[in-house]
Amino acid sequence: MFDAVEKLKEFIRFPSVSTDPKFKEGMRGAQKFVSDLLGSIGFKVEVVKTEVHPIILASRGGDPGWPHVVIYGHYDVQPADPLNLWKTPPFEATIIGNRIYGRGAADNKGPLMTNIAAVARLLEEDPALPLRITFLIEGEEEIGSPSFAAFLATHAERLRQADFVYLSDTALPNEDQVVVTCGLRGLALLDLHVTGARVDLHSGLHGGVLRNPIQALAEICASLHAPDGRVNVPGFYDDVLDVEPWERAELAKLAGDGKAYMDFLGIDAFYTTPGFSPFESIRFQPTLEFNGVGGGYQGEGTKTVIPSKAFVKISCRLVPNQEADKIKRLVTDAIRARAPKGVRIDFVDQHKGDAYVVVPPGRPNTPADQSPVLARAFRATESAVRAVWGRPPLFLREGGSVPIIPAIKRAAGLDSVMLGLFLPEDNLHAPNESFNLDVMRKGVETAKRILSGITTS
Amino acid sequence: MFDAVEKLKEFIRFPSVSTDPKFKEGMRGAQKFVSDLLGSIGFKVEVVKTEVHPIILASRGGDPGWPHVVIYGHYDVQPADPLNLWKTPPFEATIIGNRIYGRGAADNKGPLMTNIAAVARLLEEDPALPLRITFLIEGEEEIGSPSFAAFLATHAERLRQADFVYLSDTALPNEDQVVVTCGLRGLALLDLHVTGARVDLHSGLHGGVLRNPIQALAEICASLHAPDGRVNVPGFYDDVLDVEPWERAELAKLAGDGKAYMDFLGIDAFYTTPGFSPFESIRFQPTLEFNGVGGGYQGEGTKTVIPSKAFVKISCRLVPNQEADKIKRLVTDAIRARAPKGVRIDFVDQHKGDAYVVVPPGRPNTPADQSPVLARAFRATESAVRAVWGRPPLFLREGGSVPIIPAIKRAAGLDSVMLGLFLPEDNLHAPNESFNLDVMRKGVETAKRILSGITTS
Repeated sequence: MFDAVEKLKEFIRFPSVSTDPKFKEGMRGAQKFVSDLLGSIGFKVEVVKTEVHPIILASRGGDPGWPHVVIYGHYDVQPADPLNLWKTPPFEATIIGNRIYGRGAADNKGPLMTNIAAVARLLEEDPALPLRITFLIEGEEEIGSPSFAAFLATHAERLRQADFVYLSDTALPNEDQVVVTCGLRGLALLDLHVTGARVDLHSGLHGGVLRNPIQALAEICASLHAPDGRVNVPGFYDDVLDVEPWERAELAKLAGDGKAYMDFLGIDAFYTTPGFSPFESIRFQPTLEFNGVGGGYQGEGTKTVIPSKAFVKISCRLVPNQEADKIKRLVTDAIRARAPKGVRIDFVDQHKGDAYVVVPPGRPNTPADQSPVLARAFRATESAVRAVWGRPPLFLREGGSVPIIPAIKRAAGLDSVMLGLFLPEDNLHAPNESFNLDVMRKGVETAKRILSGITTS
Repeated sequence: MFDAVEKLKEFIRFPSVSTDPKFKEGMRGAQKFVSDLLGSIGFKVEVVKTEVHPIILASRGGDPGWPHVVIYGHYDVQPADPLNLWKTPPFEATIIGNRIYGRGAADNKGPLMTNIAAVARLLEEDPALPLRITFLIEGEEEIGSPSFAAFLATHAERLRQADFVYLSDTALPNEDQVVVTCGLRGLALLDLHVTGARVDLHSGLHGGVLRNPIQALAEICASLHAPDGRVNVPGFYDDVLDVEPWERAELAKLAGDGKAYMDFLGIDAFYTTPGFSPFESIRFQPTLEFNGVGGGYQGEGTKTVIPSKAFVKISCRLVPNQEADKIKRLVTDAIRARAPKGVRIDFVDQHKGDAYVVVPPGRPNTPADQSPVLARAFRATESAVRAVWGRPPLFLREGGSVPIIPAIKRAAGLDSVMLGLFLPEDNLHAPNESFNLDVMRKGVETAKRILSGITTS
C-alpha cells in the first residue's frame, strides 16, 4: 500500500525554495520526485517547461463520459529563514509525536501528498475507477506563479475539458472542524525604495540639514493606516462588496475564541477593521501589510550614519471585486502624493493575484448554471467530511491567496473545491512549520470518498 | 626623513574595525603598528589594557617647566560596509591623484599620522625641543570609547600634569580654509525593538487582526519629528543654550553655498531646524537620526509574512548643556507613551558622549582663568595657519562628536585645540573614504609650527 508518510518525508528533504536561485537543485529534485511518484502510480507525466520552474501535468484518461477532476498542488516552498529559530533542520523531515516538521510540511507538501495518496489507494483498490484525473502541480506558487498565465494560454483548452479543480492548500480552524474554502483573498505586492543623500553620510557632520530616508519611509508607512485600523489609501475600499448574510452565519458557527486566538498569536490586543470581528476581518476585508523593512546599519553596535537608502516590502490582501492593478495604482499614487521633499521614491513591482469566490449548491446566491459535477463534488465533500470527521464542513472564505484559482476560473471556466488540511499551529511561512499526521490520515480517507463520490450521480 | 605617506599606507592596511569582533586581528595590528612607530621616534610607549581595545600612551618627558601637550588620536575605524559601493578595496591604501583611498584614511589615520609626522620631523630637526609630549591614542573612538572612563579614573592625575590636548579629528570646510573646532556635539544612542506576534505569521491567514510591528515602528519613528524639522520629543530643546553672537559672526565668514552643499549631498531640499541655516543647524542644534532599520523579509522577491519583530537604531546629536542621559530618558519616555497597543517595545542602550565648548582667548566670553599655555596654543595656531595656508583659521563649533574631549575636560581639566584636517568630500563613515595628501603635507607643516610655537612665550 502507498505509504503517504514515508513519501512525504522524502518530499520534504528537497529544499525547493522557488524564490531563491540558490535552491535550483532542490527545486529540480522536488519536481523529479513528484513526477516519478505519479508515474509509478500509473499516470502519464509531462513536465511543462516554463520561464522559471516547470509545471507537472500528469493524467489518467478514460471514457469521455467520466467526470474529470484536476488535482492542484505545488512542490515549491517558502524560504526557511530565520534559520536560527528552527528547532529541527528545515529540510529534514523530523517526526515528533503526531507531527512531521520541516519547511513545506503543511504548505503544500503534506496536503499534496495526502491527495496523491488518496488517488494511489483508490486506484489500488479499483483500477477501473470511472474517473479521469489530471494532476497539475506547479513550482512557483510561493513566488506568485509568474509562469502560470503563459501556461494557461497554451493549456486552457485542455483544462476546459475537465469539470472542476480539487485541492488542499487552505486551512482548518482546528483538528475537529473541516473547512471547505469558498473564497480567497487576492494579492498585490510591491517594494518601496526611498533614497536621500547620494551616499551614507556622517550623522555628526551632516545631521540637521536633510531628511533621513528612514524617517521619510516611516512617515509614508505610518500614513497608510488610519488609527482605527483601516487602510488609509483613497479609494482602497471602493470596490469591496458587502458580505452575504449566509457567509456571516456560516462563519458564526465556527465559535471563535478571541482570547485563545490572541494567546496563539502572542499579542495583547487585536487591530481589525471597524465593524468586523477578527475572524471576519481576515476573511472579508482587504489589508495592507509590511513584510520587510531595511536600511542603514543593521549590525552589532552602532554606526552613526545617515543612510542613503531605505526600503519596505508592501503586500495587500484583496477581497473579491478588488483589482490588483488598480490597488497597486492607488497605493503608489498615495505614496507619491505623501513623499516628502528631499527624498526620491522608487517602486519595484512584485507579483499579484485576483481574489476568488465560489458558491456551494443550494445557497441563495448559487449560480443557476452551476456545473452538475461541481455541485456533486460539493455534496460528496459534505458527506465525506461528515463520515470521516463526524461533523459537516463549514463553507467559508479564507484570508490567504491561491492566485492560480481565480486564474483557472478566468482562463478555463473551472471552479475549485478547496478542502483545508493545515492547522493554525502548523506555522506556515514561519519557523518550525509542521503537519499533523492524524489530519493527513483522515485527509486521505476524505479525499478517497470525495473522488469516488463524484463518479456516481 | 619621516615619510608620512608611506607610514599612512601601512597604517590603513590594518582593518581596525572596533565595533566588530571579527576584526580583532586588524585592531591588534594597528595598535602594534602605532606603538612601534612611536617607539621608533624616541617615545616611551605603554599599551594600557582596557575591557575592549587597548589605549596607547607614549611620552617624551623633559623639564617640568616645559609646556606639556597631549596629542590625541584613534587607531580604530568605522565598518567598511556596504562593501559593494567601494571602488577600491577599503583596507588597501590606494593613491589616485592627490588622494589616498581606504577606510580610516581621513577618520582618523591620516590626520593622526599628520601629527605623528610633525612630531617626528620636529625632533629630527631639534632633538632638544623644550616640549613635553604625550600621545594618547585609543582604539574605541568609533564605538563611543567605552573604556575611556575607566582609563581616566586611573590616569586623570597624570593627564592633569599636562597643559592642553591637541588633535586633528575634525573637518575643514574646503581645501583653503582651516577651522579650529571650538565645540562638539554630544551623542546619545539607543536601539528600539518592536515585537508583535510571537513568530512571523502568514499574511493571508492572519492579516487583518493584528498590528504589524513594522507599522508600529513606522508610527513611532514618524512621530519623533514635527513637520517643520524639529525633534518632536517633549523637553528635547529645554537645555539648549542661545548661540553667542561672535559664533554666528565667525560662521558667517564661511560663505556657505547652499546650492553647492545640496549638490554635494545629492538632495533637492534641505530639512533644517527653523531659524537656522543648514550650516548653523549642523553646529548649533541637536538632532535625532535613524542610523539603521530592519525587520521581516529583506531578500530577493517576496515573502508574505507579518514579521514578529522590527528594530531601528536611533542616535541624537546633542549641543552644549544637553545631558545625554536626560535626552535618552526623554526619547524613551516619548516612545513608550506613543507605542500602540498590541506590540511590545524594548530598548537596547548604546553609548553616549557629552557636548563640548572651548572659547579662544580674547572673546567676550573667554574664561578669565584660561590657562596661559592654552591661550598661547590658540595664538600659535592662528599664526601657523596664516603662515601655511595664507589666511587665518575660523574658530567654529562642529556637528560631529569626539566624546573623549568633554571627558578629559571633566576628569583632568584639560581643554582641547582641535585643528581640522578632513574635507567634506573625504566620505567619512561612508564608502570610498579618502584623505587629501596636499592637506596632509600642509597639516604636517602647521602642526610643527604650532608645537614649536608654544615652546616660546
